[in-house]
Amino acid sequence: MTSASFLHSLMTPQSIAIVGASNNPMKMGTMHALSILNEGFNGNFYPVHPSETSVLGYKAYASPHDLPQTPDLAVFVLPSKHLLPLFEAFGEIGTKYAIIITAGFKETGEDGIRQEEELLALARKYGIRFIGPNCMGVINQKASLNTTVVPINAKPGKLGLISQSGTYVAQTIPYLQKRGIHYSKAFSVGNEADVNLIDGLEYLGEDEETAAISMYIETIRDVPRFLDVAGKITPHKPVIAQYVGGSEAGGRAGLSHTGALAGKDYLYDGLFEQAGVIRVESVEQLYGIGVALAEQPRIRGNRIAILTNSGGPGSAIADTCERFGCQVPPFSQGLQDQIRPLIPAHAPCGNPVDLTFSMDPNLMTDILPELIMKSGEVDGLVIHGAMSTGFMKAVYPNVSQLMPDVPLSDMLEQMRKDLSETVRRPFDNGIPLVVSSFFDREDQFTRDFEDAGIPVFDAPEKAARAIAEIVNYHEIQKRPKPQPPVLPEAKPEAKKIIDEAVGSGQKALDEFAAKRLLAAYGIPVPREWVVNSLEELNAMMDSVSFPIVLKANHPEIMHKTEKGLVCLNIESAEGARRAYTALQDRAGNQVPVIIGEMIDGERELLAGIAEDEQFGYCIAFGIGGILTEALKDIVYRVAPVSEVEAGRMAEALRTRKLLESYRSMPPVKKEAIAGLISQVSRIPFIHPEIREIDINPIIISGDSPLAADALVLIKQ
Amino acid sequence: MTSASFLHSLMTPQSIAIVGASNNPMKMGTMHALSILNEGFNGNFYPVHPSETSVLGYKAYASPHDLPQTPDLAVFVLPSKHLLPLFEAFGEIGTKYAIIITAGFKETGEDGIRQEEELLALARKYGIRFIGPNCMGVINQKASLNTTVVPINAKPGKLGLISQSGTYVAQTIPYLQKRGIHYSKAFSVGNEADVNLIDGLEYLGEDEETAAISMYIETIRDVPRFLDVAGKITPHKPVIAQYVGGSEAGGRAGLSHTGALAGKDYLYDGLFEQAGVIRVESVEQLYGIGVALAEQPRIRGNRIAILTNSGGPGSAIADTCERFGCQVPPFSQGLQDQIRPLIPAHAPCGNPVDLTFSMDPNLMTDILPELIMKSGEVDGLVIHGAMSTGFMKAVYPNVSQLMPDVPLSDMLEQMRKDLSETVRRPFDNGIPLVVSSFFDREDQFTRDFEDAGIPVFDAPEKAARAIAEIVNYHEIQKRPKPQPPVLPEAKPEAKKIIDEAVGSGQKALDEFAAKRLLAAYGIPVPREWVVNSLEELNAMMDSVSFPIVLKANHPEIMHKTEKGLVCLNIESAEGARRAYTALQDRAGNQVPVIIGEMIDGERELLAGIAEDEQFGYCIAFGIGGILTEALKDIVYRVAPVSEVEAGRMAEALRTRKLLESYRSMPPVKKEAIAGLISQVSRIPFIHPEIREIDINPIIISGDSPLAADALVLIKQ
Repeated sequence: MTSASFLHSLMTPQSIAIVGASNNPMKMGTMHALSILNEGFNGNFYPVHPSETSVLGYKAYASPHDLPQTPDLAVFVLPSKHLLPLFEAFGEIGTKYAIIITAGFKETGEDGIRQEEELLALARKYGIRFIGPNCMGVINQKASLNTTVVPINAKPGKLGLISQSGTYVAQTIPYLQKRGIHYSKAFSVGNEADVNLIDGLEYLGEDEETAAISMYIETIRDVPRFLDVAGKITPHKPVIAQYVGGSEAGGRAGLSHTGALAGKDYLYDGLFEQAGVIRVESVEQLYGIGVALAEQPRIRGNRIAILTNSGGPGSAIADTCERFGCQVPPFSQGLQDQIRPLIPAHAPCGNPVDLTFSMDPNLMTDILPELIMKSGEVDGLVIHGAMSTGFMKAVYPNVSQLMPDVPLSDMLEQMRKDLSETVRRPFDNGIPLVVSSFFDREDQFTRDFEDAGIPVFDAPEKAARAIAEIVNYHEIQKRPKPQPPVLPEAKPEAKKIIDEAVGSGQKALDEFAAKRLLAAYGIPVPREWVVNSLEELNAMMDSVSFPIVLKANHPEIMHKTEKGLVCLNIESAEGARRAYTALQDRAGNQVPVIIGEMIDGERELLAGIAEDEQFGYCIAFGIGGILTEALKDIVYRVAPVSEVEAGRMAEALRTRKLLESYRSMPPVKKEAIAGLISQVSRIPFIHPEIREIDINPIIISGDSPLAADALVLIKQ
Repeated sequence: MTSASFLHSLMTPQSIAIVGASNNPMKMGTMHALSILNEGFNGNFYPVHPSETSVLGYKAYASPHDLPQTPDLAVFVLPSKHLLPLFEAFGEIGTKYAIIITAGFKETGEDGIRQEEELLALARKYGIRFIGPNCMGVINQKASLNTTVVPINAKPGKLGLISQSGTYVAQTIPYLQKRGIHYSKAFSVGNEADVNLIDGLEYLGEDEETAAISMYIETIRDVPRFLDVAGKITPHKPVIAQYVGGSEAGGRAGLSHTGALAGKDYLYDGLFEQAGVIRVESVEQLYGIGVALAEQPRIRGNRIAILTNSGGPGSAIADTCERFGCQVPPFSQGLQDQIRPLIPAHAPCGNPVDLTFSMDPNLMTDILPELIMKSGEVDGLVIHGAMSTGFMKAVYPNVSQLMPDVPLSDMLEQMRKDLSETVRRPFDNGIPLVVSSFFDREDQFTRDFEDAGIPVFDAPEKAARAIAEIVNYHEIQKRPKPQPPVLPEAKPEAKKIIDEAVGSGQKALDEFAAKRLLAAYGIPVPREWVVNSLEELNAMMDSVSFPIVLKANHPEIMHKTEKGLVCLNIESAEGARRAYTALQDRAGNQVPVIIGEMIDGERELLAGIAEDEQFGYCIAFGIGGILTEALKDIVYRVAPVSEVEAGRMAEALRTRKLLESYRSMPPVKKEAIAGLISQVSRIPFIHPEIREIDINPIIISGDSPLAADALVLIKQ
């Protein structure tokens, strides 16, 4: 059964049993039960309690075996030490779904880990799928299901949430309601003993009531599946993620929190990019950008119009839009000529349009949005300063002095304006609208906007960032359909090289063999030979073209440059002989020597692949040579990657300009770079004996990459 | 008179006249007048109105000449076309201060510019200092002065605000009140025809009621004065700035907004860093971080404790703290042993301390903060999840079902707790405290915290960022007292080189002369000679040590590398002769040739100085060589800079690792780098004929910088 189908069943129970609820309102179990009842759940409800005969007005049962029917869903909020027998009893009567709020498992250490294993074993035995333990429950707005401690009673929204923190599902509900944000469905996954983050993602990906998915992540326990599932969802539904745990203390906090093993921030960065997931930096963005993507129509380009009643916020919106990749194009003269007579003399009309302190709400909410949206000159709109009753409340202490007979309610009534056409306009025109206002839902405009799915942010920069992420999602949707990388056949030459190294117990290939291996998979390497004596060297001197390089070649010699075991730019046979002798001296004993053509090029890159405990093989690509560690301009992906994904890695470098026509150098052949990266990303899957490959530097010679040095490590 | 003293007079008038107020409450002038009256201004108040005999209950006067006394301050809110004669009339009766709300001046184009010039001329003639035009007025909470359109009536805070957008002074007042943020004083400076941003800064710097200063900036019209004024304030009072206008559209918006000429973002970045100003990216941070710095005690280090009731927010705070440079150190075993028995079993106590869903408010607000603050193990504290009545309001629909006889007010009363000790604790212990809560001022804890000057942020990441900026200000305060750079005497050799170039009408020095000029000021350059013939070259060959470089040397030849006019790595006299001939061939006619020692080093930097229209001479330092444009790792400062400031520039590079012990290379001599930068930054001040200096690359040879190539442009 797919996650989508069993989670659908779990989220739409016809009958619920709860263990841990009583008539004491200060008990957590009671709070959870009350939420279920007050949210309007209309199936059968069965409290299970050892002593009470009635709980919250419902007949209580001492044991699951006493229940009049098998409940679809069991919710557990009792202390952890009592959990297992009761859980088993539900298994015995045939309950198939459970939510385990109870904490005290994996997150608490050894005993807890063992208890969680027993729990899982029982679940497998009885075929129970469950969420938790150590979670806050779930919310399904359409089905009036709310197993958290906080009542909601609001209309369903379109934003789905999956969270490894229970707080972000439940405690934030009042916060969200004050911002007009509503879930379609929300999951607190807790310790993920059974159902995990990715199951929730898969389910919400197929859920028709969910238009965008926000995820609060402390760890991803199955990276390849996340990539697969998210990668299938993001082309048609936006996924937004906050990952916390990249820093040392953040990771420590997460570890004790849900027993999560925090991973490396840069790997998550690459994973999200690869999966088309939009990464945000705060829970506020998780909700705010999430709801903007969930509720607003898809954008068709990156041209943003700004309509403001004040220059400062207009500038801030424009500035933020451009920083995050949108255009704020000047309006055509024609459009400006239409706007000019409508707004105060000298007020800017070129985009941003600034009404200055005009209080005419028709301009701000109807006339100008209509003109701008119909112009064809922009793809999205940000409005700042649309305000009505909120502003009146603020100035009423002044106004009332002059009009003491007019009560506040009358003044507010005068400020009210029907926005029903305004709020339809983005959907009718296919032009997303986001609003910035310093007035919250006490203002009628803010309330009407939010209730119609037009997000209102309490600062101009936030509104701008939201529209920029709407544009970002448009870019994600434009990506070509991903081609799963096909693994080539093992090349006999490569297999021979690996087998020999493994046979002789080497920890690494020597450089010459490493490059032969790469060459076998089409990775360009310099012309090279190995010589074992001065005689062999002399014999070759006629067939090389100077300048050449000489390097010691031995599987146990690394960091050759630092050890003086590389001689560059040798111009003559005599020079080569001197270099050979010097290398042997420095090596201390007889070593084979590589003779290779000298590669000329000022641009140095690197590519590498290594195995991460959590992420599996990851491919790295970036700036190589001596700048590697200082720059840290390196992009990561989960391996293997297709050529298209490899090309995106190159595009993601901060210093990608280097790969273009740069100074007097030609543009680097993009397909050669992408081919190299994607080939490297496949090799350890063909030869699982390989632990790690490091190619550094890759020198750009003319317009083409050449692997100038390579290290291949073998698993022991 | 200093800004501080005349602005003090302007901000504490004993009598105010207002022009543009009437009895129509929908007129802006009336709104401004009502704010003045309702805020509790208790001096004499004189409406000036052409026809009304009474305005807002006060006797109105047809002309300033009719007033019974000379008002200290005149406030103008009338249409711009009527302004000048009335302004002059106030000048005639001796009024010395004015606030001009009226718009329609410089920001509207040519006519407006002329009108603003006339206004300024009148002000100079009559000795009037004024704020505006095109502003929103000022607020002085202590003096009950509020000339904006929005009433306040709240206790004074400690945050001073100066804004080039009127909105951020006035329209945000309800927003700020909902967040418990209060001004000491606030200025909307509008077009800055007379009083400008920097005057306001100077005034607030000396104002004892202002503990931190936030600035919203679209342009700085006098950069050297800003640097001087801010530089004197920031060692003892934090200054926070948002600059908007760095992007194209942001700049366009600003230009039409207050007639501001937007500047280059990276120059502002450098300026703020140089002045010790904390730059933020949003107006929310301007207020939130501003109030945290204004109200909380100074921090003594960067070690932060986190106390939370939920793992997710705890992780987010830890992660954000570390990203922004704080430590979140694990607590000692001793401290953990004290905390362990107080919190739920298995709950993390190592920092973050996670109470899980414990609702015991004493732990969160008293017992644990006291233990942690007294431990000596941390310098600051962030609390998430302290909540009382707000949470009860959220769950009351559930609770009331079980306790239908207990009204909400009783339940809220039970949740209330006296926080008077809690809110004193940060001040008593010298440990700043910031709070994250999803509950706003409807929660008693949030309200009590905010009212006592403990900022409450509505997301964990924001609280973490605020404490990180408190730490950042601590770092700013630790800076050594800045030494104004002393200009050295002009060196005769340098003067001769410049004079000759100017005399012969050159646009640039040739490379050899450029390096001689630099060498005259102690900047290390390679050993070099110039030869004008093969004979001269031959004569030298005995005195050079190979390898050498040859370069064409002519003031009109630039981009020599691209033109093939540089020959590197020449190993022999014969090679030098070949190179000489080749250079002459490529140059097309006879050119002098530099012979120089070949500088060996893989680290390449750049330094340069050029004049910016707005910023004056700015010094740049960063990564040079072929990576210059791709990396853009360049730091800017307003010139000249001291050695200390130059050292900070080097520290500010993203790739500063390169200057440390790096791979097998030694650490670069810091004082040599700092000396080079600061010397370059002084040269155009000694020789004002110089338009620009570019030294690229500076090659690090061993541990020392050498100016390997240099360009000096002469003003025409």
